[in-house]
Amino acid sequence: MTFANVGSLGTKPGQRDAVVSILLRPKPELRGAGCLLYEVGVNEESPDTVFVCELWESAEAHQGSLKLDSVRAAISEAMPLLSGEMGGTRFTVLGSPIRDA
Amino acid sequence: MTFANVGSLGTKPGQRDAVVSILLRPKPELRGAGCLLYEVGVNEESPDTVFVCELWESAEAHQGSLKLDSVRAAISEAMPLLSGEMGGTRFTVLGSPIRDA
Repeated sequence: MTFANVGSLGTKPGQRDAVVSILLRPKPELRGAGCLLYEVGVNEESPDTVFVCELWESAEAHQGSLKLDSVRAAISEAMPLLSGEMGGTRFTVLGSPIRDA
Repeated sequence: MTFANVGSLGTKPGQRDAVVSILLRPKPELRGAGCLLYEVGVNEESPDTVFVCELWESAEAHQGSLKLDSVRAAISEAMPLLSGEMGGTRFTVLGSPIRDA
């Protein structure tokens, strides 16, 4: 079943945009790994936070993607820029009022 | 810019599935109102919570959708089943590592 991973990554002051650019670097291999959606964003209320909204074919697909070279490289590049504050929610998607319509 | 609305709706004990079915009721008019994605789900850690992950053409589109008859009807039908506990995050989408790839 489709797996949703929605998260927030706290960054060190002034490092938000650098983390955004790492996350936005094209990673076409994610599709092959089962990524259906991967949106990166920010908001004004949290100037030192990057938000991600991901949909995956399964929780296993998401887990497996963490072993991809490009993902491991992005994580190690971003880690020094992060504050350590992380949040988020993971859930199984049951459906959509606009997809089956 | 694309607007993400990710939220969690606390339900009264035993009412989660009823709220899910209200949210999953087909609402094709949401697309016309600017809804790009509307996923509804649950997880095992929070048995009395429904999660939604929405993408809209803009924050204004999302706001405007709250005036749709079907949305107002769904909200009033679901309200008595909710615990009042709500969470979530709203953010502006800057891009995706898989969409521009």
